[in-house]
Amino acid sequence: MFGIIEQVFKVYGYVPIETPVLENLSTLTGKYGEEGDRLLFKVLNNGDYLGKADDQAYQNKDSNKFTTSIAKRGMRYDLTVPFARYVVMHRNDISLPFKRYQIQPVWRADRPQKGRYQEFYQCDVDVVGSKSLSYEAELIQIYDDVFAAIGIPVVIRINHRMLLSGIAQYAGIGDQWIDMTMAIDKLDKIGEAGVRKEMTERGIPTSAQDTIFELLKHKDISSLRSAIGTDASVSGSLEEMERVFSFLDGLTLKNKVQFDITLARGLGYYTGCIFEVTAVDAEMGSLGGGGRYDNLTGVFGWPDVSGVGISFGAERIYDVLEAKGMFPSDVQAGPVILLAAFDDASHQYAFRCVSQIRQAGIAADLYPEPGKLKKQFKYAADVSCTYIAIAGESEMNNGTLMLKHLESGLQEELSVEAIISRLK
Amino acid sequence: MFGIIEQVFKVYGYVPIETPVLENLSTLTGKYGEEGDRLLFKVLNNGDYLGKADDQAYQNKDSNKFTTSIAKRGMRYDLTVPFARYVVMHRNDISLPFKRYQIQPVWRADRPQKGRYQEFYQCDVDVVGSKSLSYEAELIQIYDDVFAAIGIPVVIRINHRMLLSGIAQYAGIGDQWIDMTMAIDKLDKIGEAGVRKEMTERGIPTSAQDTIFELLKHKDISSLRSAIGTDASVSGSLEEMERVFSFLDGLTLKNKVQFDITLARGLGYYTGCIFEVTAVDAEMGSLGGGGRYDNLTGVFGWPDVSGVGISFGAERIYDVLEAKGMFPSDVQAGPVILLAAFDDASHQYAFRCVSQIRQAGIAADLYPEPGKLKKQFKYAADVSCTYIAIAGESEMNNGTLMLKHLESGLQEELSVEAIISRLK
Repeated sequence: MFGIIEQVFKVYGYVPIETPVLENLSTLTGKYGEEGDRLLFKVLNNGDYLGKADDQAYQNKDSNKFTTSIAKRGMRYDLTVPFARYVVMHRNDISLPFKRYQIQPVWRADRPQKGRYQEFYQCDVDVVGSKSLSYEAELIQIYDDVFAAIGIPVVIRINHRMLLSGIAQYAGIGDQWIDMTMAIDKLDKIGEAGVRKEMTERGIPTSAQDTIFELLKHKDISSLRSAIGTDASVSGSLEEMERVFSFLDGLTLKNKVQFDITLARGLGYYTGCIFEVTAVDAEMGSLGGGGRYDNLTGVFGWPDVSGVGISFGAERIYDVLEAKGMFPSDVQAGPVILLAAFDDASHQYAFRCVSQIRQAGIAADLYPEPGKLKKQFKYAADVSCTYIAIAGESEMNNGTLMLKHLESGLQEELSVEAIISRLK
Repeated sequence: MFGIIEQVFKVYGYVPIETPVLENLSTLTGKYGEEGDRLLFKVLNNGDYLGKADDQAYQNKDSNKFTTSIAKRGMRYDLTVPFARYVVMHRNDISLPFKRYQIQPVWRADRPQKGRYQEFYQCDVDVVGSKSLSYEAELIQIYDDVFAAIGIPVVIRINHRMLLSGIAQYAGIGDQWIDMTMAIDKLDKIGEAGVRKEMTERGIPTSAQDTIFELLKHKDISSLRSAIGTDASVSGSLEEMERVFSFLDGLTLKNKVQFDITLARGLGYYTGCIFEVTAVDAEMGSLGGGGRYDNLTGVFGWPDVSGVGISFGAERIYDVLEAKGMFPSDVQAGPVILLAAFDDASHQYAFRCVSQIRQAGIAADLYPEPGKLKKQFKYAADVSCTYIAIAGESEMNNGTLMLKHLESGLQEELSVEAIISRLK
């Protein structure tokens, strides 16, 4: 799966980067909210660290404060913050726009439970240093290519943060656009009534709610544009989305790309287009999401570097594939063929045969001891070989092997060359 | 480089495993000697860990003891111990012989210096659960294939731990064979005189030293065999090495495989054949090593599971490649071709062209903004493209692009299809 994703990233001109697992705690803390700080894995300083421990904090049993005196590093919590740190640190070496992808594990001290691990992979692709909307279109294509290659039909939904902000302005509650957005984000789960209730609780008047829900009914950009497109509050963001779609004009996408005015995305740092991908026919949350952010690197001292990126929810994609029984059958981790021999002489002969098969680039193995075939057949099945090839005295004399297809049981005496061309 | 290594591992029927970065400290401590324990990165327990802290140890400023009360996990220090833990933990799920490879980073709290990092990759391949010497031969082939594919000519040296032990017995100092081995291990660096001096310091008498150095002169197994081959102390290990070589008989290896009676390998746990690889024409220590060990999993409760494995020194291989300027030129991380456009219309046209090129599997990119060509050429050079393809008004009307080879400056107006077949 990572292989497919990586291949697509490369074709789109993204380069791989890796960042260290250990980051300074000062880089990590304060970036993920209070809960994030709590879930960070912190690494004890080496040596006689107690010499510099904060005695006051220890006496007060203040674990948080004490930690800062005995641990200066932590483990990567996501890929975004280390990437921002990386970009700023290498600002003199990288050419903007900088296109990178990163597939690495991250760590969170969550209580482990089904589908939630303390160590799990993230898979991000971002371009920083350009405001061009061609990248939004390109990232949509990447989603399209990846999910087509993996074999999960998806809908790629797109919206714009400033459109939501504009709608709030248009409804006369510009100051409360974040409240509005947070409520709309739950529309899928709690329906219009639930969202209205939450809006009321957050102090958004009913009249504004009516305006908002009137607008949320629009299912495409053009109908929204005819309704309020000339209003300054939304015209800019509508134009940007139209431009993204114009790049995709005339291209054949393999999945549906759909404007969704109700798409909100939780995370605070998006400032432009936002994306979310869901499977067409599987009950599963988002398989990925992303968007444009205008100031990710600012906190590390390089402001105003606009970027846009998406990520893939590797575990959920894995779960969808598993639920659908869709793991491709050609993902064979072990050897394709196992060679088996009767005695020492045929074992040595088989060793030369297996060497020849391997030199042809075919994953092949030889059972380490000659002897009972039953044991060797069992091993071939255990390591999921497709074929077994038996070397007995007559095969050795003929310069052949007895090739047997394990599932069908069909067998044929063939030269090593013939076996190689059969397996290729 | 990892790609080449991994490809060879797969062809030889090894399957990839990954183990978590975090292991219980009880798994890690005591396995790497006192220095190793000191260099382990320990991870602070989460939450209000001070509630369970060892107050006595704190008052005594005993950092080591205190650590055990506030940190129960540590970061992977090598791949061998976690592998042994993995094998024992999965003993009911794996089929023996179990062939695995593992390419993952490890962490050591060494003082960072040139060529020594706190986080670095290890690259191990092992088979456990069989004593068959065909695996020794197979691992030699793996070294041979990998270094041939990477392009570093090497010598693969082989010896046998029990041969060294046998020589000590033959020389009448059987009890001191470890002392003898440790001294011989330094022969390369300090010469015969130095080794003799050390042997004397370790209490090995001169007469025994004479016997030993007489034997160390043998450059191949057969001459050693004619000298003392019938002696029970060495006949077993000589036979084993002869058997390894007999598997390789008649095969064309691309590198030299050489018996080296002076090869000792530092680590204590080897019990059979040992290997070491050095570059033929680069002044560099070992590029890899390994050997057979008879009881790696015993400490985790599964004794007598013989295994044999080798590892690759990724950083040193990297250093050799760099020193020789041998990084293959086809390792192109970025796109092969950059498309450039003059204005909005040709930019949209170029977007469709780059999409078409990417669909053909070629890594391609489009400069995000149309306009000045100079800037776009500079970017193409910065990201190491081989070609730039320019979309102007006339190309757009002709359905072509102006393809320019950046190094030679040669250019040609071609259809996108023609460009694709040129680049494939």
